[in-house]
Amino acid sequence: MLRTHTCGELNISHLGQTVTLCGWVQKSRDLGAMTFIDVRDRYGLTQLVFNTDSDDSLRETSRSLGREFVIQVTGAVLERTSKNAKMSTGEIEIGVSKIEVLNGAKVPPFMIEDETDGGEELRAKYRYLDLRRNPIRNNLMLRHKMAQEVRKYLDGLDFIEVETPVLIKSTPEGARDFVVPSRMNPGEFYALPQSPQTFKQLLMVSGFDRYFQIVKCFRDEDLRADRQPEFTQIDCEMAFITQEDILNVFEGLTQHLFRTVKGIELGSVPRMQYADAMRLYGSDKPDIRFGMQFVELNDIVKGKGFSIFDNAELVVGINAKGCAEYTRKQIDELTEWLKRPQIGVTGMIYCRYQSDGTLKSSVDKFYGEDDLTNWAAAFEAEPGDMMFVLAGNAEKVRKQLNELRLEMGNRLGLRDKNTFAPLWVLDFPLLEWDEETSRYHAMHHPFTSPKPEDIALLDTNPGEVRANAYDLVINGTEVGGGSIRIHDRALQSLMFKHLGFTPEEAQKQFGFLMDAFEYGAPPHGGLAFGFDRMVSIFAGLDSIRDVIAFPKNNSGRDVMIDTPSTISDLQMNELKIKTTV
Amino acid sequence: MLRTHTCGELNISHLGQTVTLCGWVQKSRDLGAMTFIDVRDRYGLTQLVFNTDSDDSLRETSRSLGREFVIQVTGAVLERTSKNAKMSTGEIEIGVSKIEVLNGAKVPPFMIEDETDGGEELRAKYRYLDLRRNPIRNNLMLRHKMAQEVRKYLDGLDFIEVETPVLIKSTPEGARDFVVPSRMNPGEFYALPQSPQTFKQLLMVSGFDRYFQIVKCFRDEDLRADRQPEFTQIDCEMAFITQEDILNVFEGLTQHLFRTVKGIELGSVPRMQYADAMRLYGSDKPDIRFGMQFVELNDIVKGKGFSIFDNAELVVGINAKGCAEYTRKQIDELTEWLKRPQIGVTGMIYCRYQSDGTLKSSVDKFYGEDDLTNWAAAFEAEPGDMMFVLAGNAEKVRKQLNELRLEMGNRLGLRDKNTFAPLWVLDFPLLEWDEETSRYHAMHHPFTSPKPEDIALLDTNPGEVRANAYDLVINGTEVGGGSIRIHDRALQSLMFKHLGFTPEEAQKQFGFLMDAFEYGAPPHGGLAFGFDRMVSIFAGLDSIRDVIAFPKNNSGRDVMIDTPSTISDLQMNELKIKTTV
Repeated sequence: MLRTHTCGELNISHLGQTVTLCGWVQKSRDLGAMTFIDVRDRYGLTQLVFNTDSDDSLRETSRSLGREFVIQVTGAVLERTSKNAKMSTGEIEIGVSKIEVLNGAKVPPFMIEDETDGGEELRAKYRYLDLRRNPIRNNLMLRHKMAQEVRKYLDGLDFIEVETPVLIKSTPEGARDFVVPSRMNPGEFYALPQSPQTFKQLLMVSGFDRYFQIVKCFRDEDLRADRQPEFTQIDCEMAFITQEDILNVFEGLTQHLFRTVKGIELGSVPRMQYADAMRLYGSDKPDIRFGMQFVELNDIVKGKGFSIFDNAELVVGINAKGCAEYTRKQIDELTEWLKRPQIGVTGMIYCRYQSDGTLKSSVDKFYGEDDLTNWAAAFEAEPGDMMFVLAGNAEKVRKQLNELRLEMGNRLGLRDKNTFAPLWVLDFPLLEWDEETSRYHAMHHPFTSPKPEDIALLDTNPGEVRANAYDLVINGTEVGGGSIRIHDRALQSLMFKHLGFTPEEAQKQFGFLMDAFEYGAPPHGGLAFGFDRMVSIFAGLDSIRDVIAFPKNNSGRDVMIDTPSTISDLQMNELKIKTTV
Repeated sequence: MLRTHTCGELNISHLGQTVTLCGWVQKSRDLGAMTFIDVRDRYGLTQLVFNTDSDDSLRETSRSLGREFVIQVTGAVLERTSKNAKMSTGEIEIGVSKIEVLNGAKVPPFMIEDETDGGEELRAKYRYLDLRRNPIRNNLMLRHKMAQEVRKYLDGLDFIEVETPVLIKSTPEGARDFVVPSRMNPGEFYALPQSPQTFKQLLMVSGFDRYFQIVKCFRDEDLRADRQPEFTQIDCEMAFITQEDILNVFEGLTQHLFRTVKGIELGSVPRMQYADAMRLYGSDKPDIRFGMQFVELNDIVKGKGFSIFDNAELVVGINAKGCAEYTRKQIDELTEWLKRPQIGVTGMIYCRYQSDGTLKSSVDKFYGEDDLTNWAAAFEAEPGDMMFVLAGNAEKVRKQLNELRLEMGNRLGLRDKNTFAPLWVLDFPLLEWDEETSRYHAMHHPFTSPKPEDIALLDTNPGEVRANAYDLVINGTEVGGGSIRIHDRALQSLMFKHLGFTPEEAQKQFGFLMDAFEYGAPPHGGLAFGFDRMVSIFAGLDSIRDVIAFPKNNSGRDVMIDTPSTISDLQMNELKIKTTV
């Protein structure tokens, strides 16, 4: 080894030892008689000292070092005169007797510090330098630790990790596929998997019993800060189980991760029906770190001559505790925020429960003291609270009120990143209506089983059919989702029929799976966690980018390696393709 | 859970308990008064008995079950009258009191047995049934166990697993890339990685210090039994190390795997120079489970009037111990085998050391008793041995003799699959001459560092330059390879120059890496194991196919899911590509 120790491990117990360290120059202070240099590696920082006893060439070298130079130093471990209790190595320093510059460094385009001065584009281009910064490195070490713990937990429960193929078949269902032209089969293409769904089901048919994989998946979708064309799933499947078994196993995994990685005892995960989540939070992924549940007011506000409420399908509001003192300006600003096109509220009604016990609303013309007292009772409001009310189409107004609730949660400091509130959301609808294509789509995917008691509704009222489907939500973010699958050919065919497939189309795309169901398919089900998302929640980050070593930007580009890029005519000729740009 | 126990865990200690099992019907014997059924799951087999006490419907159901039906049974654990010591559950049976058929099964197209009657194509099409067979399932469980142990070992040495991107940039160096058209960047393509080489080097520049990843890699090459378009590497890199450190760490990994997975103490791994491997075995991956090293005869056979030897660059042979009794027919057959085009030997000379102590060769006309005694001395031959000798161009004849040596090793039973002989081959050449393109290619890849003392030879005698490169060979198969990398921009540029890149080409393709070397790159190096190959050696298999859950055939097709396949015009339009078939 080029070193005897890392830059993070020396302390007072090593006094007097001669050691050799390697690392990067973090900073350097030349005090005339002495030069101090902090040398950094993945494990920590150690202070080096070059004093007047050092020979001339050593002093010269020490003064010539720039930031990020790579050095190897040998010297004695000395006790510091001024100790730094914040550093694990803060009690010692190395009196350098020998130094070698292993590599020089140009001045980095941004500061390699926890808080850097580099913009996003610059840091993306020099990602290898951005990765030197502690926060980013810590995210990736957290990710590694989480992956190890996932494997430990699942291996301990007899799950087997099986690698499924990356070059698979393009299917029209779901998001857009990335495709790969086949040179050996000209005119034909592979697709990259959006998930290993059908393969893991086949592994259940094969009797693997318990499967998992931490696996890259791919979706060619337009990107947001929160999406990447390639992302990682913790993909799991079990046979001979009920939904209850799956919830228990993966609640256990979640608890295990919080315990081993963050030292948090999570406790048992509460459960909520999809229908209740929509009614009480206007979202299938409620953030239950705080209450502020929706209160429906139709019964008490209608028929008082206020046409907006009278004509609305739903009048619904939230109680913003302690916000009665909001100024007119604050309310106007909030209303403007709600009127932005992405939310689209046309107007908001409010009612203050003033500290003197009186009630004051923006619709006092229509609602008297008695009415507002009824409102306050419905909201379980107290003096000092503020009630915000929206009205309109039920589905739309719930979505809007969800936005308002989350925003008020932010403003009131109710969404602490160090508080973790997991939730199972259960009994999702099987199908959802798609206006654009005028047909039902599978809400999860076509392999999700309907609740047996709802199958009869498939013909009469497809939108009402509930699925054996569940999501794990943490702090308002969906981190995992899954279902009990169909394991019967007839039911799977029926499902494809309701999704608008002809029998021929279904056979062509998914015949292998339906055939497999005829050779002894066990009852099975599973779940997939979004691993990037899970790590970002553990790291307290909003975006998944900083938990991915080499992410792509919003145009799907890696600006560091400059890809995608053109390929040669020779390559295209071999693949028998042409671009039509 | 649908079961209380698995089919592999019940024994005499469970007597009298009422249990519920789930699984597949392996076989069924109807003896009139009693019906016996073996039910199978991943964990084992359990015998079920339906006797005359069973009610009619139970008896009827038991008789209606076909092979591979999926059942759930409840009953009491009973002691068997005739025990089967070969099965872990062989002392008990279940007296079934309740049965439910969870799913039926058509008659499988081949037997789900250790030795099946299904041909390769049929088993590929129904891979989900082939995967039910014990040998295949055991391979995948071995693979899982090995992956877990790799991670445990490397995590214990502070290696971090970092996921590198799958959508990267196409580069002309190396094998052919699979490419992925970018919809968001029309006319441009991503490539799938042949290895994460440049990314892992960047992680070293970033200070990650110790990286690993078990990762899918892709090569669009024409396929052999032993190659797959997608394969898995254990990819590793370390900073601030010497070659010696790398050899020690990964020798340790190899020992750890043999110890934990196979219970074998491997001992330390011998080392051999590349030049010696070529001289003594005619191969850079010698199988050292057996000796039979090459003996060079130029000094003792030339100048005796035998023109084939006199005109040959190299005369070289092996001693086939104990083969003196080979008949003329056997020798002719062996010679024919050597004459096949893929080996291309024109003729073989032999010399028997007969049991009476006399020597008899196929070239007695030119070589007398004294000459042959010299031969025998060179070969360290004893009575009963057979010397086989080839002559010709040195490089070619060594390759041919390597084939003969391996074949004789097979015939003499010297290549036992349960014996494991690892070997480090060191100091590979940096460059190799490519006749087709009339230039030097990097033998490993362009990032491999030359030995410092050989750099001067780059201008004068490039073929002589040795690299800091090493392979791990087990039983004649390369299972891993790596090198100490270049970490200096100037040397990397020089290397690209010698590989025929213009400075502009080098900058366009690998500028990001050379730029990174200017911002403080530490000395680093690493290695990658072929994981599929490694598992197949542990499993005692010749092909990697049966250690891959869903492999592709020699045309790169997955016949089960029928891919590659055509995609829609809509997809091609969105991607701005056209096929030209």
